[in-house]
Amino acid sequence: MPRYTAPVAEVAFLLDRVFPMEGSTGLPGLADLSPETLQAVLTQAGRFAETVLQPLNQSGDREGCRRHEDGSVETPPGFRAAYHRYVEGGWPAVSGDAGFGGQGLSLAVGAMVNEFCTSANMAFTMVSGLTQSACSAILAHGSAAQKALYVPKLVAGAWCGTMNLTEPQCGTDLGLIRTKAVPQADGSYRLFGQKIFISAGEHDLAENIVHLVLARIEGAPAGTKGLSLFVAPKLIVRPDGSLGPRNALLCGSIERKMGLHANPTCVMDYDGAEGELLGEAGRGLQAMFVMMNQARIGVATQGLALSEVAYQNAAAYAKERRQGRALKAPRSPEAPADPIIVHPDVRRALMSIRAFNLGARALLVWTALKADIARRSPDAAARDAAEDLLGLMTPVLKGVLTDTGVRNCIEAQQVFGGYGYIVEAGMEQFVRDARITAVYEGTNGIQALDLVGRKLPRDGGRAFTAFTKEVASFLKARAGDTRLAPFLGPLKQGLDHLQQATLWFMQHGLRDPDNAAAGAYDYMHMFGLVAIGYMWARIAAATFAGGDGDAPPEDGRLLFGRFFMERTMPETAAHLARITAGAATLVAPPAEAF
Amino acid sequence: MPRYTAPVAEVAFLLDRVFPMEGSTGLPGLADLSPETLQAVLTQAGRFAETVLQPLNQSGDREGCRRHEDGSVETPPGFRAAYHRYVEGGWPAVSGDAGFGGQGLSLAVGAMVNEFCTSANMAFTMVSGLTQSACSAILAHGSAAQKALYVPKLVAGAWCGTMNLTEPQCGTDLGLIRTKAVPQADGSYRLFGQKIFISAGEHDLAENIVHLVLARIEGAPAGTKGLSLFVAPKLIVRPDGSLGPRNALLCGSIERKMGLHANPTCVMDYDGAEGELLGEAGRGLQAMFVMMNQARIGVATQGLALSEVAYQNAAAYAKERRQGRALKAPRSPEAPADPIIVHPDVRRALMSIRAFNLGARALLVWTALKADIARRSPDAAARDAAEDLLGLMTPVLKGVLTDTGVRNCIEAQQVFGGYGYIVEAGMEQFVRDARITAVYEGTNGIQALDLVGRKLPRDGGRAFTAFTKEVASFLKARAGDTRLAPFLGPLKQGLDHLQQATLWFMQHGLRDPDNAAAGAYDYMHMFGLVAIGYMWARIAAATFAGGDGDAPPEDGRLLFGRFFMERTMPETAAHLARITAGAATLVAPPAEAF
Repeated sequence: MPRYTAPVAEVAFLLDRVFPMEGSTGLPGLADLSPETLQAVLTQAGRFAETVLQPLNQSGDREGCRRHEDGSVETPPGFRAAYHRYVEGGWPAVSGDAGFGGQGLSLAVGAMVNEFCTSANMAFTMVSGLTQSACSAILAHGSAAQKALYVPKLVAGAWCGTMNLTEPQCGTDLGLIRTKAVPQADGSYRLFGQKIFISAGEHDLAENIVHLVLARIEGAPAGTKGLSLFVAPKLIVRPDGSLGPRNALLCGSIERKMGLHANPTCVMDYDGAEGELLGEAGRGLQAMFVMMNQARIGVATQGLALSEVAYQNAAAYAKERRQGRALKAPRSPEAPADPIIVHPDVRRALMSIRAFNLGARALLVWTALKADIARRSPDAAARDAAEDLLGLMTPVLKGVLTDTGVRNCIEAQQVFGGYGYIVEAGMEQFVRDARITAVYEGTNGIQALDLVGRKLPRDGGRAFTAFTKEVASFLKARAGDTRLAPFLGPLKQGLDHLQQATLWFMQHGLRDPDNAAAGAYDYMHMFGLVAIGYMWARIAAATFAGGDGDAPPEDGRLLFGRFFMERTMPETAAHLARITAGAATLVAPPAEAF
Repeated sequence: MPRYTAPVAEVAFLLDRVFPMEGSTGLPGLADLSPETLQAVLTQAGRFAETVLQPLNQSGDREGCRRHEDGSVETPPGFRAAYHRYVEGGWPAVSGDAGFGGQGLSLAVGAMVNEFCTSANMAFTMVSGLTQSACSAILAHGSAAQKALYVPKLVAGAWCGTMNLTEPQCGTDLGLIRTKAVPQADGSYRLFGQKIFISAGEHDLAENIVHLVLARIEGAPAGTKGLSLFVAPKLIVRPDGSLGPRNALLCGSIERKMGLHANPTCVMDYDGAEGELLGEAGRGLQAMFVMMNQARIGVATQGLALSEVAYQNAAAYAKERRQGRALKAPRSPEAPADPIIVHPDVRRALMSIRAFNLGARALLVWTALKADIARRSPDAAARDAAEDLLGLMTPVLKGVLTDTGVRNCIEAQQVFGGYGYIVEAGMEQFVRDARITAVYEGTNGIQALDLVGRKLPRDGGRAFTAFTKEVASFLKARAGDTRLAPFLGPLKQGLDHLQQATLWFMQHGLRDPDNAAAGAYDYMHMFGLVAIGYMWARIAAATFAGGDGDAPPEDGRLLFGRFFMERTMPETAAHLARITAGAATLVAPPAEAF
């Protein structure tokens, strides 16, 4: 039976000490909390995750969702009651806009609450995550009437939101979308088509579900330029906000999946469903991207969240399970064997996971604080700079936290030996659940292409330049601090590799875009290593600044950082070698050779 | 619905061209086949795997095994009939000893037949794999009567074999075994205890199941020195070979697992079961290691086999699924999109898998040919040299082919995007099934420690020296061949790194064994890269020697080899960096810091 304890102290340390919340203090519409109140919020969120959500995780996986003949979908036992408590506790609304009933806390706090709840129960929590993303899209692109009608309900979690993009013939290539929107005399539209892989497309948790649907208005051009975004609620919403009759949309079936069994992945059939245009006609993709980008950060959080809960269980097991003896001398001579945590190879596995988790969480918090600024700062330059960094980090976070999240879940499962393969232990569920994070909201290959093809060259490389400048300034300012030397050296090396790779793309990728595409995946991972390495250097600096002096902090956190620097950062060299190998060998074989 | 085509031509190429079978020709007891006959055997084996086993793979996963109240276990529908055909076709006996009814073919041929059958249906095939390993243990340590009684039935597959090591309190640490053997007046023993995680411990495929059981004779010392190995058949075997009554052993339950659903993983309760000592009392572990080492090669084969079938499906999907356009110009302008195999990042994923598979298969064949020599050569020096290499390569093959096998299954699943997460596509089953290979027969962490702690230092490092000498001689002999340059340079670099790491262990691991243990896992993977790199260089040399001249071979095989050299071999540098980082950071944190 797996366990979970929300890493409240770790989050508080990041928010109070590493990236003091003052960074976003005073932003319009953002509630400021004292460290004590913040700690209380995090503690309560953690307790909710631990006591309400976590106990439903294994049973939810086992029971799964059931679709009834009328197209309704029943979530696993206990999920409705838990969702009720989730809404009652105000948890969906933590970072919600205060003007629409949200609590108006920093997105960083919202991300951490999401992390806690996802570690406890990913299938449950992603319902709410997508709702928050749908809400943002309506806030960004909706009319005043749409905002008034939908946003308060979505912020509160009384209604849920979904994103409807994929169709059988198109996932990545949205230009191929066929779902049709037929204009009506009253300015509304009727939607016809089939969407697949719709997460939480139908369920019994909330009183209504608001679908955001990409479709092509009759007569619109082919390709992505012909796409528009529509709001199509499950139950028609009357202008006064009351719920009307059912809309002509139905869950046709739910998928049997590797994991995430408690979250229904639906085929959605639109058979003349009423829909309202959201934003401008023909600019549906842009509106959907607001939702998608936020969802990508949410998926990155999922990767971290599963890595964290898998780690916690592996660490606990390694302290309890006794096999063999420490190499130099028995540690528990009174017992028949030592706990396996004495073995260096078990420590290698555990430390690689935790070193990643701590650094990745810092990166997530840092990025979320920038998102606060991008959304709320009155200073246009500050907004632009934050938006740049957010755009750059979104694919990095999504790709790296999920790929590594999956790898970490496997590594944690491995610590259990044969027991990890048994369903009861719960470790294999983490692997199965985590696996989807590398796929949805754009596969990680797509994230890499987004990074290298769009985010990197945008505005003459402004975002990349700002990031490398920040890291270089940090390195320069701290150069004399010998306590930081174990962090600064590897970070500098990693930054050099990243700059070499970027230069290589400029020299070879413009001439032949295959060279950029062939190295994109490695570049994304290298970027992640450097960004997390920078976070570790920031953590170390904050730790020493906190008055701990030369002594390592009591809980040994920085030893995990040193592990990251010594053993994970060297991978940047392999990434660089692969990137500079170019595309020649990749593009040479004809399709038949595969 | 996944598909599978046995790579017959690839295997024939390895056996005929790269490692001509003459290497084992003329060994006593080994049947020699002409290339044509060999091709026919492989073709038939492939057809059996494709048409009989593969169609049962998904249904077997879905249906799983069922234990009845009487302790009997029912395999999924179709498995009994398939097993009957498997035995009838003589497939279990391919490499079986001709003196006991086997076909006496090279172990390399047997390994390849196992690969085909495992790609098609791992849960089915591992029943037979363990039987072959049990058979080897009886051949090596049994009395003449035991051999005569058990081996012919096991060789033929009429009876199956199992290995019973694990108990709830001990997996890796077998010294903790509690199962008790009570001597009887007639020289036999009664076994009492519980074994867990017993693969195919009970089923309905064969008329009898021969359990090899590690137990402690009453009064024997604690630890591994007190362990003896026993043969305890499910049905008592009378001295004339006929089957008698049921033995006092029972399957108490079967485990719910992540994958491998069609293979029952049993809790076995021994309640006074009759057992006969196999080999000497107190030397049970040594006898079991014969079985275990062979089983480890079998597990390595499983890693490769799943990587291969996952690759085949991903490659087929990438040629069919159309999304997006090639970067430079559409490849199928007449269609709405290009097949995704035009995208460099999809090729990167596919090539990394196939480049590994081709090289890993060569390493498996090469090692199996050495095993033939070790087992059968009349020349003691040749036997010793082959045994050295076999011992060295066993943990490398097991650890590297399974870790990479799992990673490759995930990478192949990823090529499918969202579809790969759906059960129907079959890709997620490959991941779930493959996952156990990194765990059983000794976790991969244990393989790494076996390599570094035992195999490397044994006989003054004789095996390692022989291996590096062979690679260095190859490099020297081919130094002038410019066609081979893309292979030789990276191989030389990898070999240098391996030698540096080995030297580092000598300098730092003897002084502090934690340093060796902390680097063992990276060393194992580095060793695998160098060994597979050597295989690719051998394949390239054989290809050019085959008269293909300067032109790349028609099927572009060597392009995959170049991919391996350009993009996979550079990882040796990261492994070296990690190894030489030592144990200091790993051993520093107290258990509470985890």
